Amino acid sequence: MADAASVKRVARRIVETKRAGHDVVVVVSAMGDTTDELLELAEQVCENPPARELDMLLTSGERISMAVLAMAIADLGEDARSYTGSQAGLITDAAHGAAKIIDVTPGRIQEAIAAGAIPIVAGFQGVAQDTKDITTLGRGGSDTTAVALAAALKASVCEIFTDVDGVFSADPRVVPAARKVPFITYEEMLELAAVGAKVLHLRCVEYARRFDLPIHVRSSFSQLDGTFVLSPEAIATAISEGKAMEQPIISGVAADVNDAKITVVGVPDKPGEAAAIFRALADASINIDMIVQNISAATTGRTDVSFTCPVGSSKKALEALEAKRSAIAFEDLILDDQVAKVSLVGAGMRSHPGVSADFFTALAGAGINVEMISTSEIRISVVTRVDDAKRAVQALHTAFGLDADGEAVVYGGTGR
Amino acid sequence: MADAASVKRVARRIVETKRAGHDVVVVVSAMGDTTDELLELAEQVCENPPARELDMLLTSGERISMAVLAMAIADLGEDARSYTGSQAGLITDAAHGAAKIIDVTPGRIQEAIAAGAIPIVAGFQGVAQDTKDITTLGRGGSDTTAVALAAALKASVCEIFTDVDGVFSADPRVVPAARKVPFITYEEMLELAAVGAKVLHLRCVEYARRFDLPIHVRSSFSQLDGTFVLSPEAIATAISEGKAMEQPIISGVAADVNDAKITVVGVPDKPGEAAAIFRALADASINIDMIVQNISAATTGRTDVSFTCPVGSSKKALEALEAKRSAIAFEDLILDDQVAKVSLVGAGMRSHPGVSADFFTALAGAGINVEMISTSEIRISVVTRVDDAKRAVQALHTAFGLDADGEAVVYGGTGR
Repeated sequence: MADAASVKRVARRIVETKRAGHDVVVVVSAMGDTTDELLELAEQVCENPPARELDMLLTSGERISMAVLAMAIADLGEDARSYTGSQAGLITDAAHGAAKIIDVTPGRIQEAIAAGAIPIVAGFQGVAQDTKDITTLGRGGSDTTAVALAAALKASVCEIFTDVDGVFSADPRVVPAARKVPFITYEEMLELAAVGAKVLHLRCVEYARRFDLPIHVRSSFSQLDGTFVLSPEAIATAISEGKAMEQPIISGVAADVNDAKITVVGVPDKPGEAAAIFRALADASINIDMIVQNISAATTGRTDVSFTCPVGSSKKALEALEAKRSAIAFEDLILDDQVAKVSLVGAGMRSHPGVSADFFTALAGAGINVEMISTSEIRISVVTRVDDAKRAVQALHTAFGLDADGEAVVYGGTGR
Repeated sequence: MADAASVKRVARRIVETKRAGHDVVVVVSAMGDTTDELLELAEQVCENPPARELDMLLTSGERISMAVLAMAIADLGEDARSYTGSQAGLITDAAHGAAKIIDVTPGRIQEAIAAGAIPIVAGFQGVAQDTKDITTLGRGGSDTTAVALAAALKASVCEIFTDVDGVFSADPRVVPAARKVPFITYEEMLELAAVGAKVLHLRCVEYARRFDLPIHVRSSFSQLDGTFVLSPEAIATAISEGKAMEQPIISGVAADVNDAKITVVGVPDKPGEAAAIFRALADASINIDMIVQNISAATTGRTDVSFTCPVGSSKKALEALEAKRSAIAFEDLILDDQVAKVSLVGAGMRSHPGVSADFFTALAGAGINVEMISTSEIRISVVTRVDDAKRAVQALHTAFGLDADGEAVVYGGTGR
């Protein structure tokens, strides 16, 4: 919700849903630029704000939006009641800024539903079990709150409203022929989220998978269905009931330009050296994505180890490694932030061995050099030059028949 | 606190006080225009916002200021921890927008003090005992929070910081020769607050009197002492110890232009008619201040009843009376909002019978017509034309020797 006008629009939509006979629980995030403005205020008074106080500050954003939304709904004649994360029973650990949900005890929400009211819950926040301090869940926190609450309330679906129509086979700004994916499995969604698709956060999808809670990602500007994120079994049932079409082998292509590549040059090629490198990075809390180790040059007994990590962590990674330079005895560190990770995701690739071959053929055909490779059961990712990423995504999207005017390679959802 | 710069200034002052060896608990109100901005947002989405939601919305103002202040203190190297009213144990009834404090259970605040931290508490808010909903205390709520918390913590003093140097013998904008009153009794302060002195709210002074908690009203821009609000006994002790000067008979003069006068014309002069008038007003929740009934005209058997009430309630008062016109059988209603209430307050007038005479002589000397009179043991108030109010205050201030270059009529604090 950007402003008062969008609050009123959202309120109308909620009231329509309620009046259509559904019990509705709403989870909100902060309005418009509120969070940025609060962070700016914090910066003005403190160089390194305590995490507990930052959480207290930031949670006022949702407090404002939920109260205002409740008022807008009241203005339409329905009874709406706002609840903080703490009041709604979102119990977390005490990791301020990145708290984990430990338990959800939504007694007050259930009472409000039973009374015919519409509960409006602050997303992104909870209360620490031990300290009773206010916590925030960190990135993706509002979506995660919605899924956690929906699971605890045994809701039939968690609708996540966004400014796009759903999950697309690629970023429509990169691939104009990208199409909306009507159904996708949790696993595919997780892989897409992990490789740069912004629409849903990893954490909220993981939570939904754990509780087998259907997610419906849809636009707040449209009444059309968006994308349903479901278990493979639920998709198979939808196909057998004629509610879903057969599923394509590949559900999407994504590019992520937020990683940097760091190469540790001239590492002695003996047991324990790679462990020392990644221990140093883990101790500095740096998330590593891909890792490649060159074949050792026989003449020197040394090798190079490359890895990718978020651009934002790259400086910290270099510092952590530099501090161990003498212990690990490497020769040099090279930072390369002009890289992109291009990924192809699809549950169908599990049963279709030709996918890898088609993947590399398509990239070769587009003249794109592959620097690193990593795969999961349902994903292939490569690191390319950042300038090649767009062409790589387009080439793969076309090659796998995902373009809206192309013929998608499909598979039936049952047993394959 | 208006902005980040003033937050930092306040933080420095708190840290200085802490480092001087005091245990400090801070109560904050919302920053700058936050409350007005939030109210404006509410107006944009809802014609008549539910009181519960308005409280949820407005309490985000203190949430922001307390977190930001805690950060600014942390930036100076002290451990500061912010607490909502609920976390600080401010237990209220469920009257949203005007909740009453039922109990204060500041366990978490005491723990923070014991840990050497500086607790920062949100003023103006609490949590309802029965519903567990967030409440606000209404006007004067932040000062009242500070006094209630100080009383519960058995603090030696509650310092209330404001943008003026303390309590003055008159509004310095009206009387340039007004002087700061160094000591004043709870009773005198209550009378001054009731008759238009803005510096402290009635409710917070009442609370302090109940718990005999010293209040020190002072400027956040200056290190000078402001005004101590104390019991008569505490002032007597201060005088006997040479810490306070002898007290003047009169402590202050004030004018209040926020009242309107309503006259009910031609009321049948028989038992029960006045009761019917004031029952109708009470049922409409209108606070009446002064009441005057004319002597009945023998020829008509009718009389006029005049009363004053806040200008903001005057329309409601007229409506409430109009609805009873036939029952009460009055002839007309006259609203006069061009009135002012001018008051003289001083504990010394109790033992100085000449004060009333001097009061009316001074007004007569200034050519000011008195329309209504009301008195308490330590106050004389009159209603005048609003245009005469300023001259009335000046004349009284001079007549009672309160001008900074004049000679105040003093009395010793002990036993008089």
